Amino acid sequence: MKAIEWRGSSVRYIDQTKLPSEELYVETDDYRTIAEAIRALKIRGAPLIGIAAAYGAALEAARLPGADLAVFRSRLEEAFSVLLATRPTAVNLPWSIRRMKRVLDSAASTADARSALTAEAIAIHREDELMCRRIGEHGASLIRPGAGILTHCNTGVLATGGPGTAQSVITTAHRQGKNIRVYADETRPLLQGARLTAWELLREGIDVTLITDNTAGFLMSRGKIDLVIVGADRIARNGDAANKIGTYALAVLARHHRIPLVVAAPGSTIDPSLSDGSMIPIEERSADEVTRIFDRRIAPEGVNVYSPAFDITPARLITAIVSERGIHRPPYDFGSAERAQEDQRELHRQD
Amino acid sequence: MKAIEWRGSSVRYIDQTKLPSEELYVETDDYRTIAEAIRALKIRGAPLIGIAAAYGAALEAARLPGADLAVFRSRLEEAFSVLLATRPTAVNLPWSIRRMKRVLDSAASTADARSALTAEAIAIHREDELMCRRIGEHGASLIRPGAGILTHCNTGVLATGGPGTAQSVITTAHRQGKNIRVYADETRPLLQGARLTAWELLREGIDVTLITDNTAGFLMSRGKIDLVIVGADRIARNGDAANKIGTYALAVLARHHRIPLVVAAPGSTIDPSLSDGSMIPIEERSADEVTRIFDRRIAPEGVNVYSPAFDITPARLITAIVSERGIHRPPYDFGSAERAQEDQRELHRQD
Repeated sequence: MKAIEWRGSSVRYIDQTKLPSEELYVETDDYRTIAEAIRALKIRGAPLIGIAAAYGAALEAARLPGADLAVFRSRLEEAFSVLLATRPTAVNLPWSIRRMKRVLDSAASTADARSALTAEAIAIHREDELMCRRIGEHGASLIRPGAGILTHCNTGVLATGGPGTAQSVITTAHRQGKNIRVYADETRPLLQGARLTAWELLREGIDVTLITDNTAGFLMSRGKIDLVIVGADRIARNGDAANKIGTYALAVLARHHRIPLVVAAPGSTIDPSLSDGSMIPIEERSADEVTRIFDRRIAPEGVNVYSPAFDITPARLITAIVSERGIHRPPYDFGSAERAQEDQRELHRQD
Repeated sequence: MKAIEWRGSSVRYIDQTKLPSEELYVETDDYRTIAEAIRALKIRGAPLIGIAAAYGAALEAARLPGADLAVFRSRLEEAFSVLLATRPTAVNLPWSIRRMKRVLDSAASTADARSALTAEAIAIHREDELMCRRIGEHGASLIRPGAGILTHCNTGVLATGGPGTAQSVITTAHRQGKNIRVYADETRPLLQGARLTAWELLREGIDVTLITDNTAGFLMSRGKIDLVIVGADRIARNGDAANKIGTYALAVLARHHRIPLVVAAPGSTIDPSLSDGSMIPIEERSADEVTRIFDRRIAPEGVNVYSPAFDITPARLITAIVSERGIHRPPYDFGSAERAQEDQRELHRQD
């Protein structure tokens, strides 16, 4: 199973909102369909959003075969804007669009731009797959045989262009025969843990137990958790990390119980333009995602809802950050060395 | 609206599993219907379970008008067993059954027993209502004007024979004009916060915002919460409290953010036979409550599920316990003074 696939002149993705009851694949040659899929979380996961946006731009390039270069550029710029506007928190999205924009800017002709944009999107995807594998290898060294591991949301095949981030660490440790037990938070409101992570880990043959988000702290108090491992949607220079709502509470709980909390994410998740997590924009989602499940109301009409999609875990609560480059320990300083940085600088210079 | 009502020879209760979409009342003269309603959480909330069980026994007494006293006793004992077996954690259930049993044991005739059992069940209900009001008055003294209050699960009219426990504190403070803002955790898996608490607080005209359980920690980090107030299903002699799963995590989070956490519960919730929380039995609920919502699967077939209904919050994380007797501060010692104690002693002596 692949979360997304480039098929020459179209993109095929799995509609994640239908899982686990239905494995529905959608094929499209329209970037607007991709943008809408990102907005509606049919395509989700910070790295996968970046890949999907790049493919979206490549699709638009493929639809303009005879266009004049100026027209081609303006149409692509429009596609970039639409794709960028889908979701605010994950930095992989602007990072990926910036790479595409740079390719566009340096193209000498429409034909040249078209092939270069396709190649760049495929490269972004391939690099992410490679990063996932490296994250898995580096991170697995932190896993003790027989460990009880807690994870939150989904950070696997469905969130990336490869085997995942935090989940790549889990599957790598499993394949190394480490005999791990995994607890998956269901991750309200959208239940990515129940719907996606449990589904992926079962397919991998991993011993996985689903719990409500309310149960994580109690499991820690009972000594069942040796490690918490999560992904990230944006990491500031100092190591503060935005991730799925509920991550911050897990980090406080882990610290209380002296359990290490590890964040696993590719370099493209790091935003060196932000000195700390307070600068990370937090997306607020619609009340309906909390008050309705399968179009049935679970809360009274008229109730106020506050539903941030993400929270910020301060660096001081993060034991280590695993990227494709290795295991980073505090104090974190992602201001100089990350490969993401150059792209980011470019991004902010040109904006 | 009343969660339960005695109607002479029948009991009328609201089926809480249908809320908030439907306000369905059920009338029955069969204690087995009451027992099944408790098991299926149509009737829930520690104090309300105790009241419902007492009414269940009174119903059975009313169905045996001409019975010989020995037969009457054995049928009542059977009803006690069935009612006691419905749920293991809340101590109000055995406490209430013990009171009924004592009345039964001292009756001289069937007619005497029948009227005394009915009177005792009504007394248990009335006392609970009074306790709720006292808890509200004592607890409201802890609420500052304008406070942001977080609560978990449902502890209101639907959980008790009166205005509630933790929720009685909230409504009392509201009626005192304290201009409070309440955040209600939705409380997975059974969503009592979303379905019941939000519904009750809206009816009271209280400013209530529904959040996922994952959002509580983040709200605390943003300074939105001044007080956490919850109920309890059983409190040990040292103050350790069993309450709805997720309460323990809230207590750790509250401590991390230096926010007081208050437990509000009637004396009947205290079990002085238990020296600490490790002795409290924790009910595990069915996997279906986590993997299905409205009969639709939200998790893959075959996944393991761990779903404890309650967790234990250690006394050291509880700032104060409010009962009808007043505000108790640590170190807690419920071994001698509680009115519940005598009943409890009786219970364990006779068992």
